[in-house]
Amino acid sequence: MDQRPTVEVCFTPNLYPLHFDGSDIIVIIDVLRATTAICAGLSNGVKKVIPVASVEEAIEYRQNGFIVAAERKGMVVEGFDLGNSPRSWLNPDLVGKTVVLTTTNGTQAIHVARRCQHMIMGSLINLDAVVQYLRKKNKNVMLLGSGWKNKFCLEDTICAGAIAEGLLSTGEFRSEEDSTIASKYLYLSARDNYLGYLKASSHRRRLRDLNLNEDIKYCLTPNKVDVVPIYKNGEITL
Amino acid sequence: MDQRPTVEVCFTPNLYPLHFDGSDIIVIIDVLRATTAICAGLSNGVKKVIPVASVEEAIEYRQNGFIVAAERKGMVVEGFDLGNSPRSWLNPDLVGKTVVLTTTNGTQAIHVARRCQHMIMGSLINLDAVVQYLRKKNKNVMLLGSGWKNKFCLEDTICAGAIAEGLLSTGEFRSEEDSTIASKYLYLSARDNYLGYLKASSHRRRLRDLNLNEDIKYCLTPNKVDVVPIYKNGEITL
Repeated sequence: MDQRPTVEVCFTPNLYPLHFDGSDIIVIIDVLRATTAICAGLSNGVKKVIPVASVEEAIEYRQNGFIVAAERKGMVVEGFDLGNSPRSWLNPDLVGKTVVLTTTNGTQAIHVARRCQHMIMGSLINLDAVVQYLRKKNKNVMLLGSGWKNKFCLEDTICAGAIAEGLLSTGEFRSEEDSTIASKYLYLSARDNYLGYLKASSHRRRLRDLNLNEDIKYCLTPNKVDVVPIYKNGEITL
Repeated sequence: MDQRPTVEVCFTPNLYPLHFDGSDIIVIIDVLRATTAICAGLSNGVKKVIPVASVEEAIEYRQNGFIVAAERKGMVVEGFDLGNSPRSWLNPDLVGKTVVLTTTNGTQAIHVARRCQHMIMGSLINLDAVVQYLRKKNKNVMLLGSGWKNKFCLEDTICAGAIAEGLLSTGEFRSEEDSTIASKYLYLSARDNYLGYLKASSHRRRLRDLNLNEDIKYCLTPNKVDVVPIYKNGEITL
């Protein structure tokens, strides 16, 4: 019997119960833009990120003096300090600080998987760091896309495919699911031109309409940072 | 505003409620093998097919003298006349007959969508016929994959992508969802070699282990028949 650990892709948070079968490590992926912002922020010196699922919780933290980032529908929620634009998380004022974060999709995925053994944040900007981390751990991995309101989204799937290919191509991992094969195929055709490939994607159109093209380019640039954010007891740190 | 009808892909029956927003026509897709068998059978002269969701219902029909096809886990259920091997549906003894059918995935997808306005059966073997049919109707279309026990499956997605590309490439239809874009991309990379592309797919492995390679080849050959099976009041006919 094949004893190698598995790597499987789950497209969206609503499918998590269907796919979860005791995977040891869950990688949360929200390329546009929550996990990219978390990676950028922690790499920039943010001390920790506290993800919360609802705007109501975020308001409570704000009332207690925290720096709070809140995004809904691609925009900073009125009255909050930050959204999920990764470039705004590079602000030197955030170094050494704790940031509370709620987003449309990414923090929902974290919430769904919060009881798993071991959760980390993946994005294209920390792609190789994630692959190396998972190779060292050598355990069963689920790559969990955040989607858009529980619908399949292309950029998270391509990132999942990139991580899967990074693990499968070493021969140290195996996969069984068609969702993983499809993600890998999509990554292989996208990798030479992410921007062009995602041109028609719904999420990119949504952000382009909000004048977020520079943000999109940042999010689609592999290996800008070398960190693997880890979720533990409600907090994300390095 | 863009007034063209939409074409969208829903990967699996469990996602139907999330994706359904009043689409006028639902195309059920179960390449391996329910919708392929239905297309083959009706094209061969089968009078009608009655899809039922459970083996229990199938047994009742059998007790009432019907020809009943029942498949679970890729095999003919013990005691039944037929499974969902399309080639067995080409048997001349079936001409003019009614066949009751229950399968692991395909008949579940039909069951989920049974209250929609207008439902037809799609497969690779009737690909062009389906595209021409939908172009004539010029209404909003959902392409509903059957998946494998509600998990994403590659061959249904590729078939959905082929139908979507057939409609979108005319300029007469539009799509909004990333699931549709991904299906189209997967189809475009698969179309020159379906068998090779699907080599690693879980479903194909499952059927290969059952010595069903000839069946798979039949199911993956586009445009073998020129029929569009229509579901109405619990029955599928031409």
